[in-house]
Amino acid sequence: LTVRPIAGVFAPITTPFAGGELDRRGLDANIRRYLASTLDGLVLLGSNGEEPLLDEGECDTVIEIARAAMPRDRWLVAGTGHESTRATIAATRRAAATGADLALVRTPSFFTEAMTDAAFVAHYEAVADAAPIPILLYNVTVFTGVSLTKDAVARLWHHPNIAGLKDSTSDVGAIAELVADAPPGFAILAGSSPGFHACLCAGAVGAVLGSAAVCPDLHTELVACVRQGHHDAARAIQARLMPLSRLIGPRYGVAGLKKAVELAGYASGPPRLPLLPVPDEALPEFADALAAVGIDVRQREERDP
Amino acid sequence: LTVRPIAGVFAPITTPFAGGELDRRGLDANIRRYLASTLDGLVLLGSNGEEPLLDEGECDTVIEIARAAMPRDRWLVAGTGHESTRATIAATRRAAATGADLALVRTPSFFTEAMTDAAFVAHYEAVADAAPIPILLYNVTVFTGVSLTKDAVARLWHHPNIAGLKDSTSDVGAIAELVADAPPGFAILAGSSPGFHACLCAGAVGAVLGSAAVCPDLHTELVACVRQGHHDAARAIQARLMPLSRLIGPRYGVAGLKKAVELAGYASGPPRLPLLPVPDEALPEFADALAAVGIDVRQREERDP
Amino acid sequence: LTVRPIAGVFAPITTPFAGGELDRRGLDANIRRYLASTLDGLVLLGSNGEEPLLDEGECDTVIEIARAAMPRDRWLVAGTGHESTRATIAATRRAAATGADLALVRTPSFFTEAMTDAAFVAHYEAVADAAPIPILLYNVTVFTGVSLTKDAVARLWHHPNIAGLKDSTSDVGAIAELVADAPPGFAILAGSSPGFHACLCAGAVGAVLGSAAVCPDLHTELVACVRQGHHDAARAIQARLMPLSRLIGPRYGVAGLKKAVELAGYASGPPRLPLLPVPDEALPEFADALAAVGIDVRQREERDP
Amino acid sequence: LTVRPIAGVFAPITTPFAGGELDRRGLDANIRRYLASTLDGLVLLGSNGEEPLLDEGECDTVIEIARAAMPRDRWLVAGTGHESTRATIAATRRAAATGADLALVRTPSFFTEAMTDAAFVAHYEAVADAAPIPILLYNVTVFTGVSLTKDAVARLWHHPNIAGLKDSTSDVGAIAELVADAPPGFAILAGSSPGFHACLCAGAVGAVLGSAAVCPDLHTELVACVRQGHHDAARAIQARLMPLSRLIGPRYGVAGLKKAVELAGYASGPPRLPLLPVPDEALPEFADALAAVGIDVRQREERDP
Repeated sequence: LTVRPIAGVFAPITTPFAGGELDRRGLDANIRRYLASTLDGLVLLGSNGEEPLLDEGECDTVIEIARAAMPRDRWLVAGTGHESTRATIAATRRAAATGADLALVRTPSFFTEAMTDAAFVAHYEAVADAAPIPILLYNVTVFTGVSLTKDAVARLWHHPNIAGLKDSTSDVGAIAELVADAPPGFAILAGSSPGFHACLCAGAVGAVLGSAAVCPDLHTELVACVRQGHHDAARAIQARLMPLSRLIGPRYGVAGLKKAVELAGYASGPPRLPLLPVPDEALPEFADALAAVGIDVRQREERDP
Repeated sequence: LTVRPIAGVFAPITTPFAGGELDRRGLDANIRRYLASTLDGLVLLGSNGEEPLLDEGECDTVIEIARAAMPRDRWLVAGTGHESTRATIAATRRAAATGADLALVRTPSFFTEAMTDAAFVAHYEAVADAAPIPILLYNVTVFTGVSLTKDAVARLWHHPNIAGLKDSTSDVGAIAELVADAPPGFAILAGSSPGFHACLCAGAVGAVLGSAAVCPDLHTELVACVRQGHHDAARAIQARLMPLSRLIGPRYGVAGLKKAVELAGYASGPPRLPLLPVPDEALPEFADALAAVGIDVRQREERDP
Repeated sequence: LTVRPIAGVFAPITTPFAGGELDRRGLDANIRRYLASTLDGLVLLGSNGEEPLLDEGECDTVIEIARAAMPRDRWLVAGTGHESTRATIAATRRAAATGADLALVRTPSFFTEAMTDAAFVAHYEAVADAAPIPILLYNVTVFTGVSLTKDAVARLWHHPNIAGLKDSTSDVGAIAELVADAPPGFAILAGSSPGFHACLCAGAVGAVLGSAAVCPDLHTELVACVRQGHHDAARAIQARLMPLSRLIGPRYGVAGLKKAVELAGYASGPPRLPLLPVPDEALPEFADALAAVGIDVRQREERDP
Repeated sequence: LTVRPIAGVFAPITTPFAGGELDRRGLDANIRRYLASTLDGLVLLGSNGEEPLLDEGECDTVIEIARAAMPRDRWLVAGTGHESTRATIAATRRAAATGADLALVRTPSFFTEAMTDAAFVAHYEAVADAAPIPILLYNVTVFTGVSLTKDAVARLWHHPNIAGLKDSTSDVGAIAELVADAPPGFAILAGSSPGFHACLCAGAVGAVLGSAAVCPDLHTELVACVRQGHHDAARAIQARLMPLSRLIGPRYGVAGLKKAVELAGYASGPPRLPLLPVPDEALPEFADALAAVGIDVRQREERDP
């Protein structure tokens, strides 16, 4: 395994489709392009990878393609969370066998009211015990409607096979509370684009951000600014990311991210139903947001009509 | 297909496990016992059937066992909703091939903010177009966190392959609004135990209720009371159902229903993780609630220690 | 006091303004017109009466005008709920002194997370102990964001000075649970227009509905239908009320109700800021909704241009 | 008026009661003690000041006492938000006449669904136009259940009499979005204790924090650390504030703050009903949380039994 710490910038990459099916060649090309950036790792099969819309075989293939392309000095993280503990364990084992370094395990959530601290602790302990690779807890309330509380996390963070937590909330108070008490080495990763800089200030060691799949180096630059204490520069980068964050977050979600990476020159394709593609009338907004992060879509369109 | 209208009482039955695996014999026995009741149909692979915790092969087996046991004069309904439209279509086709009469298709919900009326309409039209059997829309906000609005339903209810809607809300105003405008023959089924009687009054033609898997004939009796205008008697039955409804609903959910059917003598077993079983200290509450619906657990325990 | 039971239809009337100030003459005329209907009572100073936007003197004046106009055989109910227990007691005492028969006391709600069952019980016991007239508990989550639970209500319903509960939820399951256990004589009033008929079926003895301030006799007719077991007729009236319910509920709220009563010929005027008036482009929708309940706005406009 | 910028640390002080009535002498003593600290200003009549539970005369008295005690080089801020625009204007005028420097105007919220961007803009423009002193917008969703969106704020921030915004959210992404686009001189103040440090990093110029009423100098020290780029030291102070933040926030709210300031030696007294006092069994937790911020309650108790 890599000796790089779990820190820095991770891009949760999209799953390109061609004719509605997994675009293997496009995925391979995307990954090779990401490897030319300064990213610390890639997250496959996350929400932005449309994992809930892929079948088991497609999931395996995505990891295989990434493993073949990726050297061991970057993190290959795979989303393996399912509703049942046993399916989560099975997916984590398959991911490990296929070459994933780390598993990002989102909370189960369907049986909302039953998702108590006790249920989460039982679930994650069973998964961590059975997983051949370290796991990251993953709290993503915007999608799941449930919250992994600090109390539950604190009952799990000493487990030797639980390496950290990705928390997609932009409630920086919650992040700061975790940081204040977490044991050394427990990696806390942020997941909110608009709160990226502030979560790093609060003590998150890195972030998994959809926007990092669009303009990866701007994200690692922001991390470097923070590490060097250049907060005004970091805030300036954060401000440039804002319009993009809105489009790929609350506004258009995964469909927005797929449109943004497509405009940035990556293989993409529309998301699968029931996700609807971004309507054409939103393209000027995307062009503006990409221009703010240094990607000139309009010039490219003129060049390649 | 059955000529019985889609109406009356449907029991969303649980999936019995033995040693953590599907208890085929137990399931068969349960279904045969349900067939001795006056139920109008059984729903397999619903939330109460722990469908999100079963694998594809188990789902197929559940339908096969039911089809083998059930005559054509009761409805065999199968839950087939998945996050992606294509997986939903695939599951519906498999259920039809295995013998289901009707598919109950819950809304996708993971990509919460993207689940607009337009997305739901696109999803359900594609599923209904492709389904070899009629489908029922299924709105179950308590689990999904999303709402299928009346506007979306009204864009779907004329589709020839969409037979109706199960709405698990106990917002009877929403049910009444649907009833007021729905085309003739569009079956509106309630899904709230505490609101059972009132939803029938509002014009629902039937209901799919977990409690019907515990004491089915009490439910068909309530329907008969309403049809005959005996509302005081119906309200009295409703009052008897209340303590059970609480235990299998907000209090313990699916785990509660599995405990109740177990105490009522059906094959059951604990739910799968991350669902936790009902704690032993709750058993007296269950005994009281079952006594209220005419099931004497305490006497049985004395008989069969 | 009246010997009429607390039951039937209560109209929560609006507060007419002229030039931004209380329109005393208009209010008096409105009340006299309502008294010509078959309403069982009037609710003054409710949400629909814009009580949170009135000052103390205006509140007193509203009750005075109503008392002067109303005979003792209808219920004069006044909203007296404030955030602090002592202000609620003071307002209830003033209302009683000015002639109110009953006080409708909505839950305090500003300190949301502190509004536990224990806090509500302490509040209502203190108010009921001090009130010179009986009080009604009032749960109106849509405005307050807090819920008065059944457990809290059950700790209060034996208090000799607590006469009942208005619950504005359209969660008919919650109403049915209250009905199942409430002591005899504890009046449960519904507050949801779309769920009016169903809540009566569930056992509510009456309702306080904004729509009753527009077409009162249609509401008492629905109650009569239910009492006589004519549920198809009741459901037909309910269906006629639906478009109006939407406009004065989720769509335009209090501003919608003020527009509807204005179109029905009552003194009205726009609501106070920050409530915005209904935009003119919505008037055709209002005309349609009023036509459905038998009020022909278009003809009137032709007559009185 | 003061020439100090609107920045730094503001303590939203509590309202002490003695025998249930305003403790004027205690309030005066508290304010004089706060003035011995390095606080930039005091906020009177905020949520923590139980403003919703005070009457108009008490509100006036609180400002009078503060004005008499406070020199002009600290900000005297008064909460003046009411449900109606006209009551808000009246309260702001009275506060100005009594000596307040700035008005903190929380959003109206009772008519939840009507609180659109348009309603908020109309409300705040009317208040700002009429106010003799500058106003601060105030978004406090935890209490109000409504959100003042960035779009609404952006339509208000050029108004010459709107000096800034206090946003109590700990959604640092929302703060960062405001900072990215706000005009120079528009003061953005944070209101979340756990997110204090991170919100400053995101560009907030100061904060209004209940915890600052307990240990004011620790808060100004944190601000100084941030200004000097000493983020590790700032994070260390933030960690020390966490247990106190929990007790006076989600755990016990205003009652918790009143207990904490009491233990810190200020005049206090229990909150008014319906707020319930902190139970005695919570005192050891308070002692621990206060010890973490350097206030030794246990030693004091030994000294003054």
